[in-house]
Amino acid sequence: MKIFTRKQIEELVSLPDILDAVERGFVAYSRGDTVIPPVAALHFDFPLGDCHIKYGYMKNGKYYVVKIASGFPDNPKLGIPAGNGVMLLFDKQTGGLLSLLLDEGLLTDLRTAAAGCIAAKYLAPKNVQCIGIVGTGAQAFYQLKLLSFVTECRRVMIWGRDLAKTRKFKDHPDLHEWKMEVAKDLDDLTENCNLIVTTTSSSKPLLFAHQIRPGTHITAVGADDVGKQEIDPEIFAKAEIVVVDSRSQCLEIGDVSYAVRQGVIKKERLLEMGEVAMDSALRRNSENQITIADLTGVGIQDLQVAVTVFEKSCEDI
Amino acid sequence: MKIFTRKQIEELVSLPDILDAVERGFVAYSRGDTVIPPVAALHFDFPLGDCHIKYGYMKNGKYYVVKIASGFPDNPKLGIPAGNGVMLLFDKQTGGLLSLLLDEGLLTDLRTAAAGCIAAKYLAPKNVQCIGIVGTGAQAFYQLKLLSFVTECRRVMIWGRDLAKTRKFKDHPDLHEWKMEVAKDLDDLTENCNLIVTTTSSSKPLLFAHQIRPGTHITAVGADDVGKQEIDPEIFAKAEIVVVDSRSQCLEIGDVSYAVRQGVIKKERLLEMGEVAMDSALRRNSENQITIADLTGVGIQDLQVAVTVFEKSCEDI
Repeated sequence: MKIFTRKQIEELVSLPDILDAVERGFVAYSRGDTVIPPVAALHFDFPLGDCHIKYGYMKNGKYYVVKIASGFPDNPKLGIPAGNGVMLLFDKQTGGLLSLLLDEGLLTDLRTAAAGCIAAKYLAPKNVQCIGIVGTGAQAFYQLKLLSFVTECRRVMIWGRDLAKTRKFKDHPDLHEWKMEVAKDLDDLTENCNLIVTTTSSSKPLLFAHQIRPGTHITAVGADDVGKQEIDPEIFAKAEIVVVDSRSQCLEIGDVSYAVRQGVIKKERLLEMGEVAMDSALRRNSENQITIADLTGVGIQDLQVAVTVFEKSCEDI
Repeated sequence: MKIFTRKQIEELVSLPDILDAVERGFVAYSRGDTVIPPVAALHFDFPLGDCHIKYGYMKNGKYYVVKIASGFPDNPKLGIPAGNGVMLLFDKQTGGLLSLLLDEGLLTDLRTAAAGCIAAKYLAPKNVQCIGIVGTGAQAFYQLKLLSFVTECRRVMIWGRDLAKTRKFKDHPDLHEWKMEVAKDLDDLTENCNLIVTTTSSSKPLLFAHQIRPGTHITAVGADDVGKQEIDPEIFAKAEIVVVDSRSQCLEIGDVSYAVRQGVIKKERLLEMGEVAMDSALRRNSENQITIADLTGVGIQDLQVAVTVFEKSCEDI
């Protein structure tokens, strides 16, 4: 049984490998070639926290994966990150534990950012004027890092609830390649940016329909549990293309679930990321369309990154 | 983060500690002091196998546990055990991973056998003439080991589908304390034994109502998933006391689920193990009663054994 620490994982994986694996995962998922049961969860009260267990396998694959990820929002007060995680890779022939990935949530960050990158690849306008990032956490960082593989735009506007944190993010030492600016407010951000990523733990809408200009693509990754929401339902009515990572999961917990429940859009309009990756006719076809990708995070992404790390380590021997 | 191998766990835990922890777990569970969501599962076709994820926590406890256990019935052909398992113990204050227990299914075997032992403590007749064990796997071994804490009877009859395996079990080097006999058939076993444990992976009933003598206690631990069954529903009609580890779970997957669905007994008659442990009025009160404990395995048992190992290791430092 191989154990990998976060540092070892960072050294092993390349971002293009992750991007490729996650995109193949989405295609397999939408083709019905995977078994990904609904997410299992625990919620805690004192202190507030949650734990999500995502698990599954490729029908023709060699492995199954169980990911256990936690979020404890008060952790930073203790000087430790809010998010944590561990993945276990098992042999689908015997049930034997092949690998324990002590990634501390890194692989979740990477696979989530990879999904955002794939969404931008197929849905963002060709000419990205400025990237808007709503949120200043770890995921905001990784979204930018991964987006560099699909857009040449290096102009960024950021917005966060906490101005000190937002300024700190602007000066992030590993983001010097980007020309970063703090948005005055979300009107400022939506006016200037036509590729927007929302990555907050908000429980109410931050972006509203009147703010969104024609030609904008929005990737929303924050709403990954009941009670979370970043996007006003009316934006979905304005959007010409609405993509989700998992139809069933997004109808439960995604931003789009509010829009469908309120009758703003019909669930038949939702496309899955894997379908968009397979069929170019489903992608953005004009610079004026408004497009949205609502991403809640699917076990297949976890499987794909865990397998990537494990197989990479086998190559290296 | 502490990692424990099976061998280290064997050295750390004492069976009385496990018995005590599991019983306290049942009481907390029946009192509503725990959070134990439904079991998460994966099923595999080629080769046949399954993986069960049990997880949860004590509301006033310091930990949460996730157990990932697998069963691959063709493994023995490859020279490896069918069952495997790993437990992860997390800090309920932060989500941090405290311990990985590479117990290879040992703790599942022990906590399952502990539940059988607790059932016998409260439900078996005072005078056990002979213990009947239906099944010859690892769990049959541990049930006997644990039963030695609650009965002085050392006479045992065993029955298994595979006679060679049954004879091998009879001569098990670690069971020389018991006077073991291979039953001619299940009529022979039920005629001679008044404390019977069924621990097979059967998908159809093995024991029938006409075989069960007054005064017999049966503990059924095999039916832990949809499609498994060891006890004919009519036996439940004959039983004066029917105990389950978890009412909700046994109504889904236990032997008793068939009896309730067929209208043989009303679900209101089911008692939980934790209730029986708390209230002596619910236990056997005559040597002539027929009693049944239907045990499907609950996450609280996994939590309790994982915590026992972890805290024991902290004491030892």
